[in-house]
Amino acid sequence: MISNVFDVDPWAVHEPELDVDLLGQTESLFALANGHVGMRGNLDEGEPHRMPGTYLNSFFESRPLPYAEGGFGFPDEGQTLVNVPNGKLIRLLVDDEPLDVRYGQVHAHERTLDLRSGLLTRHVEWTSPNGQRVDVTSQRLVSFSQRAVAAISYEVSIPEDAGSDALLVVQSELFANEQMPQIEGDPRVAAALTDPLVPEHHSHSHYGARMTHQTRRSELRVGAAMEHQVFGPDDVQVESSCSNNVGRTTAICRLQPGQSLRLVKFLSYGWSSSRSQPAIVDQVEAALDASLYTGWDGLVAAQREYLDAFWARADVEIDGDPRLQQAIRFCLFHVLQAGARAEKRAIGAKGLTGQGYDGHSLWDTETFVLPVFMFTQPRAAADALRWRHSTLEIAEAHAAHLGLKGSAFAWRTIRGEECSGYWPAGTAAFHVNADIADAVLRHVAATADNDFEREVGVDLLVATARLWRSLGHHDSESNFRIDGVTGPDEYSAVADNNVYTNLMAQRNLRGAADVAVRHPREAERLGVSSEEIASWRAAANAMVIPWDEKLGIHPQAEGFTSHAIWDFEGTPEDHYPLLLNYPYFDLYRKQVVKQPDLVLAMVQCPDSFTPEQKAENFAYYERVTVRDSSLSPGTLAVMAAETGHLDLAYDYLCESAQMDLADLEHNVRDGIHLAALASSWTAVVQGLGGMRTHNGRLSFAPRLPSAVSGLRFRVLWRGRSIHLDVGHGETTYTLEEVGEHSPATAGTASTEPLDLSHHEEQFTLTVGEPLTFDIPPTPPHGAIEQPPGRAPLFRRLHQ
Amino acid sequence: MISNVFDVDPWAVHEPELDVDLLGQTESLFALANGHVGMRGNLDEGEPHRMPGTYLNSFFESRPLPYAEGGFGFPDEGQTLVNVPNGKLIRLLVDDEPLDVRYGQVHAHERTLDLRSGLLTRHVEWTSPNGQRVDVTSQRLVSFSQRAVAAISYEVSIPEDAGSDALLVVQSELFANEQMPQIEGDPRVAAALTDPLVPEHHSHSHYGARMTHQTRRSELRVGAAMEHQVFGPDDVQVESSCSNNVGRTTAICRLQPGQSLRLVKFLSYGWSSSRSQPAIVDQVEAALDASLYTGWDGLVAAQREYLDAFWARADVEIDGDPRLQQAIRFCLFHVLQAGARAEKRAIGAKGLTGQGYDGHSLWDTETFVLPVFMFTQPRAAADALRWRHSTLEIAEAHAAHLGLKGSAFAWRTIRGEECSGYWPAGTAAFHVNADIADAVLRHVAATADNDFEREVGVDLLVATARLWRSLGHHDSESNFRIDGVTGPDEYSAVADNNVYTNLMAQRNLRGAADVAVRHPREAERLGVSSEEIASWRAAANAMVIPWDEKLGIHPQAEGFTSHAIWDFEGTPEDHYPLLLNYPYFDLYRKQVVKQPDLVLAMVQCPDSFTPEQKAENFAYYERVTVRDSSLSPGTLAVMAAETGHLDLAYDYLCESAQMDLADLEHNVRDGIHLAALASSWTAVVQGLGGMRTHNGRLSFAPRLPSAVSGLRFRVLWRGRSIHLDVGHGETTYTLEEVGEHSPATAGTASTEPLDLSHHEEQFTLTVGEPLTFDIPPTPPHGAIEQPPGRAPLFRRLHQ
Repeated sequence: MISNVFDVDPWAVHEPELDVDLLGQTESLFALANGHVGMRGNLDEGEPHRMPGTYLNSFFESRPLPYAEGGFGFPDEGQTLVNVPNGKLIRLLVDDEPLDVRYGQVHAHERTLDLRSGLLTRHVEWTSPNGQRVDVTSQRLVSFSQRAVAAISYEVSIPEDAGSDALLVVQSELFANEQMPQIEGDPRVAAALTDPLVPEHHSHSHYGARMTHQTRRSELRVGAAMEHQVFGPDDVQVESSCSNNVGRTTAICRLQPGQSLRLVKFLSYGWSSSRSQPAIVDQVEAALDASLYTGWDGLVAAQREYLDAFWARADVEIDGDPRLQQAIRFCLFHVLQAGARAEKRAIGAKGLTGQGYDGHSLWDTETFVLPVFMFTQPRAAADALRWRHSTLEIAEAHAAHLGLKGSAFAWRTIRGEECSGYWPAGTAAFHVNADIADAVLRHVAATADNDFEREVGVDLLVATARLWRSLGHHDSESNFRIDGVTGPDEYSAVADNNVYTNLMAQRNLRGAADVAVRHPREAERLGVSSEEIASWRAAANAMVIPWDEKLGIHPQAEGFTSHAIWDFEGTPEDHYPLLLNYPYFDLYRKQVVKQPDLVLAMVQCPDSFTPEQKAENFAYYERVTVRDSSLSPGTLAVMAAETGHLDLAYDYLCESAQMDLADLEHNVRDGIHLAALASSWTAVVQGLGGMRTHNGRLSFAPRLPSAVSGLRFRVLWRGRSIHLDVGHGETTYTLEEVGEHSPATAGTASTEPLDLSHHEEQFTLTVGEPLTFDIPPTPPHGAIEQPPGRAPLFRRLHQ
Repeated sequence: MISNVFDVDPWAVHEPELDVDLLGQTESLFALANGHVGMRGNLDEGEPHRMPGTYLNSFFESRPLPYAEGGFGFPDEGQTLVNVPNGKLIRLLVDDEPLDVRYGQVHAHERTLDLRSGLLTRHVEWTSPNGQRVDVTSQRLVSFSQRAVAAISYEVSIPEDAGSDALLVVQSELFANEQMPQIEGDPRVAAALTDPLVPEHHSHSHYGARMTHQTRRSELRVGAAMEHQVFGPDDVQVESSCSNNVGRTTAICRLQPGQSLRLVKFLSYGWSSSRSQPAIVDQVEAALDASLYTGWDGLVAAQREYLDAFWARADVEIDGDPRLQQAIRFCLFHVLQAGARAEKRAIGAKGLTGQGYDGHSLWDTETFVLPVFMFTQPRAAADALRWRHSTLEIAEAHAAHLGLKGSAFAWRTIRGEECSGYWPAGTAAFHVNADIADAVLRHVAATADNDFEREVGVDLLVATARLWRSLGHHDSESNFRIDGVTGPDEYSAVADNNVYTNLMAQRNLRGAADVAVRHPREAERLGVSSEEIASWRAAANAMVIPWDEKLGIHPQAEGFTSHAIWDFEGTPEDHYPLLLNYPYFDLYRKQVVKQPDLVLAMVQCPDSFTPEQKAENFAYYERVTVRDSSLSPGTLAVMAAETGHLDLAYDYLCESAQMDLADLEHNVRDGIHLAALASSWTAVVQGLGGMRTHNGRLSFAPRLPSAVSGLRFRVLWRGRSIHLDVGHGETTYTLEEVGEHSPATAGTASTEPLDLSHHEEQFTLTVGEPLTFDIPPTPPHGAIEQPPGRAPLFRRLHQ
């Protein structure tokens, strides 16, 4: 069942009534985060829930990874994001009966995620089982401006027309080691950990409490603290207490009809692998004091200010499709939430919205998420790459353990260590290293941030180039082969000369050679000789790129096009995703593609393919791509647009943008699909906008599908902002200044004119002088078919 | 350290003194078994030990198989051979001090495994810490004639010259749930299970005890019983008791110098998945009563009779190398022990000598072990294949679960269910199905047993042919490809068109077509249509066999010869076996071969290669084969002999034959390498003897290496026995009758003349008319090299 239960609104996601069966989904969709602290959209009173969740970026527990049959080099420890003390919890007792939407009568239950204010608002009108009517309005934020802080305004009132007064008890809590529901059967869902937090310290004040805990195995320390402001009748009685796992502030009063009681709850969190317990306590106290100093209204105002600035840089405006307009903003909002204040911590595949994939960060971040930041919030992209850089020693040790040179970055990790328990779809997917190198090159191209290149870029490019040089080899005809690795498509594994991997490794090797020449001091520090640079270039120039002469297309990897084509006709619709219904061995040996692999190569390395190859390859791979990964539609939208299939591009754009709002993969309960949400931006900007950045130049080739009547977006490029206003007939380009110290810039702001191109027509854009160009007609193109039953989801839904 | 500590003796393995550090090895080497009951060569008194072990064929416990990241179709339950109640245990207390070789003084400690009597004899001369001298002589047998029975004669005496008398207490036990040492770090070693047996029933008589237990998860029931005869001074006091886990018969007396006390212990075992506890008790009681009826002397005599008959059929005589003569008989003895009375139970890779590989049966049995039985004890081969046949329903269900037709037999199992926890080297090694089919075809060829073919052969051949037809596909040029499977070499995995697999599948498809035509009623029962038969032949005829034009050799699988060659120079000697020191991903993507794969294809399918291809292929693969599997040297010996490298064949024959006596793989403690021991027979008969059985004809091409001056062996063929007497210049062939009802025959005994060939010269051999032929000179041949440091082990040892 595909459904989107939310009202259409350009700037909000509004749930008009509560559906308890959809709590898993809404907990993820209504999650608030700032890249450091994340809170699932659980109900204030905690229950019912699908999965409670409060997360701190990179705060994890270790767990042993078991194997039925082990092998050398298999990682023996995994890392799992831990549910830290839940500070969202505010329970209400109305005349001895707990507010619980499963009992009594719910007259109204509305929730709104406001994408401009950053607030999650909830309004409930409820009559208790014994007939007492109360209204509750809560607002929640995780502060972008004060990284350690979250706050909740919780107001309960007795309506004027309620027949009687009521005795209310509000319990506001910090609750550690919540019992987690066990969800089994899907290997993608994280292992739940039981009581991961060992209590260490707890104390309370009159209006609050604080506690520290330590994880058992990873020995990380977390501190959490809360304080409250209480507004209500004069006789409100407030008391606080704290035990090992429960800190509680209780407010009690009797409310008359028309009266209300309001709590403002300030929360702060901190964690460390090295700081002492008193230092952590002081740290969270300080953050808490700062939040009290700012106050609720101050936090709300700062949140709005932060988001206004973000939207001014990053907003995408779409005319003619209000549902897509809403979805694309929802996507951007979640991308921002995942990375805004991550600050040299990993950005996980689920952001901080759930424990899917154990909270791990994968290649998705560099390939799909960071490009959005590079063009809208470059400092976040730089921070994320600095996090990768901070794991370089671990990656070098891992490479050495595997018998390789340079660095082998983790396929999935929180802190840097490889946590993949299935090497054919983990360690063997070495392309993550080229993806990191590529992100470095793209980031430097977009920001011209020379300091970043010198401090971070050289190390990352050299280490990854060394990996490729040792992973591949020159064969008897001097071709450079990379055998036995896994590309992006997870329905293939351990193949020779995967085109995506080889092209990205080629770019990696050349990029490393270039920066080593540009930064001789860093190159010398790393022991890079001119011989080594030459060997990188030789390997890149001799890189094997398989080609199927007979079919006139690129095989995804050697041998791919000789394999049997998957029996799509014989595959029932409920057998997707295939990985849950067919063994890997069968998927790997047949032509069936989970997510774009060769098509991603064409998107990432557009210069390596002729237009004819792109058209033929795209048509071929569309017939065998089932999109069982949420990473698919954004990439497909870009190639569909480039090959002239604009309505198909639109379908894929919608699929990517609605991935989570409509729960297209039926597992948004485990957390949002960050890369899919990010790729909907890519589908707009690179797809409909035709933006490319190859060879350090920025170019556009905008074209609109029939369903969209207008499109406006901005991208940052080397300290300037370019605004595109795209219609069906023409596009207007405007160059804008950005402030020197805005979070927008990573390198240096600039007001210089900029060389661009529009559908391959070169032009120079100057601040204050917009230019308008006609859009050439779409060239002719053949039909595109997906496997039976795998047409774009939104098209299927609307047929 | 390579060492063989045993005296050289043509018919015995004699350990002149005890080395406690080698107990693990001798426990395996001195293990006694009859294919149903197995007892490791633990010391009578139980300790010191490396691993206690008493096994019943196919008596296992289930255990969950854990995965760090699971996947569809991964088996979730494993099966592990269980240590059943230990009836070997006889403890001796001498004046309050336990006989323990670690204390007091051991004057003599000799053990002898007699390959003609089947007895393990031990003689100990010991002075206790407080100075009391005693001599102990024990003899142990596991009866070939009475399948459920084992017996021990245990005699303790005070030497004439001992200064004083002694109070002796002999405790003879049945001991369940022995504590097992935990051995970690090597994934090949089985998981030890703690207290697997739940006590159910126990009772005792005056001279014995019995007990039944049930396994916790697999719910198999085991019964064990013992009775004793006691011979000694008149005042010997004997009492018995039994509790849940310990049955004990105690004999107490005071012995004067020159006096002795002797116990004869009779043991019987039985197990069932369905029979009730009283039925099991009755069953073991009955077997025990039968053994008492036969008596010790009767059991000893029957054992000798059984073995005399075996050696008369199966003995291999080698002149000029007494150490090899001993080793080859040791190998044959253990092969017999593993399969003699298995009777439709699995023959495990370690026989019943240890818990390595969890006690599982693998493809080794059909490929390496059954051929020995086919030519020496055909009923055992038929029984083993009937066991496979009994798992057909499980294999069909497994195939269906994997989305395939026909049967997918388990890669490793005890009862039939797939227990492989690492699919690239397990489930993907589908060749096990062709190996089973091949064993059926070979067995029928060797025995002409039409009943077997009809009752078992048709089902197995049809089910496996259906697997191949669904596993492979015709490509656009109608070639039949089998993609993404794993061949015999475990340092490669999941490759396309593995030559061994494809050739064996070809034979399987053709064999199925032939039997379906020969047995129309069975074919009809199985729903085999003429269309289906035609599709098998078409697939077989179109089978892809990759060929590397440039190198002029067969790549093991597509792409193999393009891969980098392993860095043998950079691999230290202590990094072998490579799988314990390098990750699979690296092994799989390079040219390095664990065990013969392409070479095995040439041995098993000799008609599919020209002599030149055999020579070139063998030379190529020798350079990249490291023989990290004990399956290697026997196969290599055969191909070395065929290509004229007779001294190399001799080296490999010695390596195979000494595999366990000299502990060449350093893990015989976990059990003997049954397939390696069996392949030493193959190295003699197929290697030096040049025996081939292709196209239903028996041919020989004997040639001796310089180190061997003469060779004599017999093979059974279609109810007749052929004796070869091979010298350097000539070979004499003699045809012999075999008795109609001997265990030798599976089909019908015959006295008809036989068509044979000697070095491609055809002749007819008649009973009573031996024929002698000259041996042609060895054709010229090039040099053969192994990877640095990987020359044959015995050559390295002797250099």
